[in-house]
Amino acid sequence: MPEFQRPRGTRDFGPEEMAKRRYVEAKMRETAMLFGFGEVMTPTFESTDLFVARSGEGIIDELYAFEDKGKRGISLRPELTASVMRFYVNDMQNLPKPVKIFYFGNCFRYERPQAGRYREFFQFGAELIGAPSIESDAEIIALALATMKNLGLADVVVRIGHLGVLNRYIRELGISESAEKEARRLIDKRDFDNLRQVLGEAAANGEATARLIELVNLGETEAKDRARAEAKSDESFGYLANLLDRLKAYGFDNCQLDFGVARGLDYYTGMVFEIDAPSLGAEKQICGGGAYTLADLFGGQEVNSTGYAFGFDRVMLALENSGVGVPSQNIEVYILPIGEKAQITAIGILRELRNAGISADMDLMGRNMSKAMKYANSIGARKVIIIGEKELAESSVTVRDMKSGEQSQVPISDILRAFTRVDA
Amino acid sequence: MPEFQRPRGTRDFGPEEMAKRRYVEAKMRETAMLFGFGEVMTPTFESTDLFVARSGEGIIDELYAFEDKGKRGISLRPELTASVMRFYVNDMQNLPKPVKIFYFGNCFRYERPQAGRYREFFQFGAELIGAPSIESDAEIIALALATMKNLGLADVVVRIGHLGVLNRYIRELGISESAEKEARRLIDKRDFDNLRQVLGEAAANGEATARLIELVNLGETEAKDRARAEAKSDESFGYLANLLDRLKAYGFDNCQLDFGVARGLDYYTGMVFEIDAPSLGAEKQICGGGAYTLADLFGGQEVNSTGYAFGFDRVMLALENSGVGVPSQNIEVYILPIGEKAQITAIGILRELRNAGISADMDLMGRNMSKAMKYANSIGARKVIIIGEKELAESSVTVRDMKSGEQSQVPISDILRAFTRVDA
Repeated sequence: MPEFQRPRGTRDFGPEEMAKRRYVEAKMRETAMLFGFGEVMTPTFESTDLFVARSGEGIIDELYAFEDKGKRGISLRPELTASVMRFYVNDMQNLPKPVKIFYFGNCFRYERPQAGRYREFFQFGAELIGAPSIESDAEIIALALATMKNLGLADVVVRIGHLGVLNRYIRELGISESAEKEARRLIDKRDFDNLRQVLGEAAANGEATARLIELVNLGETEAKDRARAEAKSDESFGYLANLLDRLKAYGFDNCQLDFGVARGLDYYTGMVFEIDAPSLGAEKQICGGGAYTLADLFGGQEVNSTGYAFGFDRVMLALENSGVGVPSQNIEVYILPIGEKAQITAIGILRELRNAGISADMDLMGRNMSKAMKYANSIGARKVIIIGEKELAESSVTVRDMKSGEQSQVPISDILRAFTRVDA
Repeated sequence: MPEFQRPRGTRDFGPEEMAKRRYVEAKMRETAMLFGFGEVMTPTFESTDLFVARSGEGIIDELYAFEDKGKRGISLRPELTASVMRFYVNDMQNLPKPVKIFYFGNCFRYERPQAGRYREFFQFGAELIGAPSIESDAEIIALALATMKNLGLADVVVRIGHLGVLNRYIRELGISESAEKEARRLIDKRDFDNLRQVLGEAAANGEATARLIELVNLGETEAKDRARAEAKSDESFGYLANLLDRLKAYGFDNCQLDFGVARGLDYYTGMVFEIDAPSLGAEKQICGGGAYTLADLFGGQEVNSTGYAFGFDRVMLALENSGVGVPSQNIEVYILPIGEKAQITAIGILRELRNAGISADMDLMGRNMSKAMKYANSIGARKVIIIGEKELAESSVTVRDMKSGEQSQVPISDILRAFTRVDA
């Protein structure tokens, strides 16, 4: 009976899963670097105050917060934007603008474990700091979409909104600030029944309520028509129409407008967006972001910033649900030495293959032929090299193709040539 | 004034440093996979009990230990072997043997921050579980050395010992178990003055003391001669002589024997080894490992295991000290659109280059020519594409080589051909 279990709500990842996750991480990194973003890494924990400054006191209940031995309040990070902007304020404010950075890391949230939600989870995100809004917003959304494209996840939907539009409609309701906040939260959840009730209780203007609900329910075409029609009279609508043109130049002409995207954190300032993977069903959002200011909140100079974070675990799930192939690890060659003397010869061949970049393993268990073949199959080896006494006497080995079953004798001195390259 | 600082003893990594760290991580991963090892990942925290079971109660003072809201004692991991073996016992005991796994992750230790020691640090390690000792030990040491070789770190020294040898000499001292333990600790630190004093106080046999101190001070050649001379009469010496032969077959004929390697944790069972990077001076050890049993301690079946961990941060430092080149990130192309209309054309070119795998960035700041050239230089761009009104009218762009200063006109329709491949 194992005496120790992993903590609730956390996961262990085995080799097959890790090979897939590292592949996806590498593709994301590669895309960000193609776009001229550079990677940063911050500590796993920060002052609890930092996260409270970003998200409000309410966040404390969701944090793994503790006191260190110096009685300082520290917390495992629940997300990475606060840490990255803290790093920016401390060390990067004087760099030439824009500062284009990305990150990949684990985050922690203390909540009841439930399907698809983990206490330790992973985010991949990017921030573009210090450039004008429209250029930043276009580049950031383009990076998020190019990342999905490079992963082969074709069926994602990006929905772009603007808090300038939404807030104008909300202000017309004539309700209290706290009711406005609650309204934004319900709009973000698309919970219109409760929205109507809250607005009713807050004695919102009836016509304004109808206009708001119509706005956040506009269909794909209607939303674009609205933005273009009112581009001249409303700055935010104009901004979105311009943004769509830019995204088209980036090669993304399927972007949708959705004025109901509200995000929910006070530091967003303008454009906000979300990306969905429809294959995930009800919990379909894989990415969220927008334009924000945080540097000033952290004691730095105010600066235009746009960023997003992918829920890495959800992206993995979306890739799986969409049947997108992610290569997993296979060993190319398995070597079976028979007898003690053959082992030293096997090590020499192992070394030669590995030095040439061919992944190779050898039997360490003293298996007999049939057990070794079964094992070679189980690890997905393409070829097996058998070194028996007879072979050894002739300075040659038997090479078996595991797919075709064909066997051939190869002189040891020729071994590398016979394997360069194992058909990929 | 920034209001938030990162926690003491932790680090932020900027883009240049991260590019190097990811390169080294990737090389380590690549080497492990060539050897047929598969990656695993475990949670960042575990039950505090797990670490106590591995290392004893004394570890608690060095842990970031806290109670979660369910009053369970959890701790940030101080190292990864315990977590990985917990994972093995929970989920991997029934896999075909051997189980060959590696990991890369952050670890935490609560201690006074000092030069080169961080409260959050990184380890890259491997474990080979369930194969016979000598085969496992040879494969594991070979992997550690191949990893250093693939990184270009040529000047490392591996010192291999055996607890069977050391413990036989220690038992001859005729001292208490606690004095034995203290002696092992001092031997591991090569603190022979205090060792003599402790042995004197423990009334150790004088001749045995002299023999022990002679043993752990044997020079490179003498240690090998001793092992070979006594290979027949002492199993552990014989084992080491055999191991050296195997490592030679792996291509590593510079391995040293050092009978003073004691490691210091009770679960090591036989072969133990350390790798030093002499360029690091006093704190030169970059890797430690050996044969151990832990699975049974964690409630699993007893199983032969061998493993090691690299101190990733020390490896980074050793590479730097040894002047080993590690590529850092450069952008290949920087695009400067002049005027609003040129921006959309610039985005199209940006897209084409990035789609072709060429890293490309564009001016988002509305810089003028001379400022843009300065910026392009600062980000290390090899070429700059200038799109002005004149160029736009002719459907062409100016391409400037930042090294030679040469400029040429290139039709926009030919742009990709002109850049494939930017000379690497």
